[in-house]
Amino acid sequence: MRSTATLEFVRQVFHGAPFVAELGIAPTAIGAGRCESELVIRPQMLQHTGQVHAGVVTTLADHTAGAAAQSMIDVEGGVAITAELKISLLRPAQGERLVCRGRVLKPGKAISFVESEVFCIAGGKESLVAKVSATMSVVNISSVVRP
Amino acid sequence: MRSTATLEFVRQVFHGAPFVAELGIAPTAIGAGRCESELVIRPQMLQHTGQVHAGVVTTLADHTAGAAAQSMIDVEGGVAITAELKISLLRPAQGERLVCRGRVLKPGKAISFVESEVFCIAGGKESLVAKVSATMSVVNISSVVRP
Amino acid sequence: MRSTATLEFVRQVFHGAPFVAELGIAPTAIGAGRCESELVIRPQMLQHTGQVHAGVVTTLADHTAGAAAQSMIDVEGGVAITAELKISLLRPAQGERLVCRGRVLKPGKAISFVESEVFCIAGGKESLVAKVSATMSVVNISSVVRP
Amino acid sequence: MRSTATLEFVRQVFHGAPFVAELGIAPTAIGAGRCESELVIRPQMLQHTGQVHAGVVTTLADHTAGAAAQSMIDVEGGVAITAELKISLLRPAQGERLVCRGRVLKPGKAISFVESEVFCIAGGKESLVAKVSATMSVVNISSVVRP
Repeated sequence: MRSTATLEFVRQVFHGAPFVAELGIAPTAIGAGRCESELVIRPQMLQHTGQVHAGVVTTLADHTAGAAAQSMIDVEGGVAITAELKISLLRPAQGERLVCRGRVLKPGKAISFVESEVFCIAGGKESLVAKVSATMSVVNISSVVRP
Repeated sequence: MRSTATLEFVRQVFHGAPFVAELGIAPTAIGAGRCESELVIRPQMLQHTGQVHAGVVTTLADHTAGAAAQSMIDVEGGVAITAELKISLLRPAQGERLVCRGRVLKPGKAISFVESEVFCIAGGKESLVAKVSATMSVVNISSVVRP
Repeated sequence: MRSTATLEFVRQVFHGAPFVAELGIAPTAIGAGRCESELVIRPQMLQHTGQVHAGVVTTLADHTAGAAAQSMIDVEGGVAITAELKISLLRPAQGERLVCRGRVLKPGKAISFVESEVFCIAGGKESLVAKVSATMSVVNISSVVRP
Repeated sequence: MRSTATLEFVRQVFHGAPFVAELGIAPTAIGAGRCESELVIRPQMLQHTGQVHAGVVTTLADHTAGAAAQSMIDVEGGVAITAELKISLLRPAQGERLVCRGRVLKPGKAISFVESEVFCIAGGKESLVAKVSATMSVVNISSVVRP
């Protein structure tokens, strides 16, 4: 992706990941070391308590953090794969939309440290519902995608 | 749930969470401080690399860890809600099924520490693909579910 | 501590923790939901590689995060105890001093979510060397200190 | 270290890290993907509550996890450096000694996933006080140690 990656290209990459497409996660902005995305909350994304399931919030936060990490890697430099992530669920997510902002804390050739924040929009009010700290492993494309 | 919770009851609880039902996550065993569950991998759960998306693995691991924590709480003692979790993605998950085993490391009245392991079954072979360490907050039911 | 906590009071609290006093960790600023501290790097704090040991960086980050959490709790409200923390070691810490800034992400009566960043000062240049995400458990004082 | 690493050699490596030597952390057993160590609790390691400071527990857990990771790396394969770790503080550590057991969950050429458990010995009774999940980065020695 790097500097030349357009939002349209990132949109296609997101759309190419079936689970991300299924949830309707779409990038809304891309920059060097940054990515923003959003998701419209639907009934099938909820917990039995009526709040968005932690798994949905994590998917959004993880994928956006990965795109932010990827934005700092040259096309030949490989693919950012999540090695681990920690998510802190600060507040219940109940509302219309989730918005996520990911940014690279420290890029690297083998490892990138990334963060992302998830906000819930309810009645026009935005509140921080989760924060993710992740370690991305930069791996060779051929070792990831196998025919 | 506690000791008297039957697998049938836990199955209903899982089924009552729309996102968990959507993914087809089902409990297969329940005990004091333990829960096992599984999920059949379908195309819409994948990454663009063909592997199960980290968000799916996290959902399975989180929900199963929560059920393990819940199994140590009295009916009046409240609901186990994920405060935070860390997931280490050890190996790519590519295969037919995911199996998860959650267990309580240390139960508590306000906080429970829980772990869960996710295994991928491919061609009859089981391999550990992820490990989760989570902190569950035990909260009053009325503060979670609002009309 | 709360709003009325003076820096002098926080300094005494830090000094009252033997391991923190031993390392020479001292608070330099305190506010609602915030705490800053510093430490002069000495040879006995190093790894065999010449860099500050991760354990020293973690001690500084943890104690400062705890003080930030404590600043949001009423005197009768209890003591902030670390339930868990994650530390990302972004860069090697090699220099003269470490500076830490902790802030509360989300305060709570039972659980507080806190972050802290550790900077290393080398030759007058400051660089971010570590970032911590922590969950603090707010517990009753009498349950912590036993005679 | 690998298979040929003797306990005596690991002892010298631990002793060569000033902060580890200062705390008196010593390895007690070494194997392929495993390391055990211990530490005698002294007054200067405590919190103001009388319990061992989380920073001391983390140092023990981190260094032992690192040694476990290192045991799976060939001499020319590089050095295991902590990229990140999460520690869950399950119970207060108050007693005479801490014992730590580290083990590799998944070794790798670039990244190793490791766990360690810390036990506190008080009056002859051993209890699990902390659990660590860490990601170790395997780096070239020359990029770590600089003259």
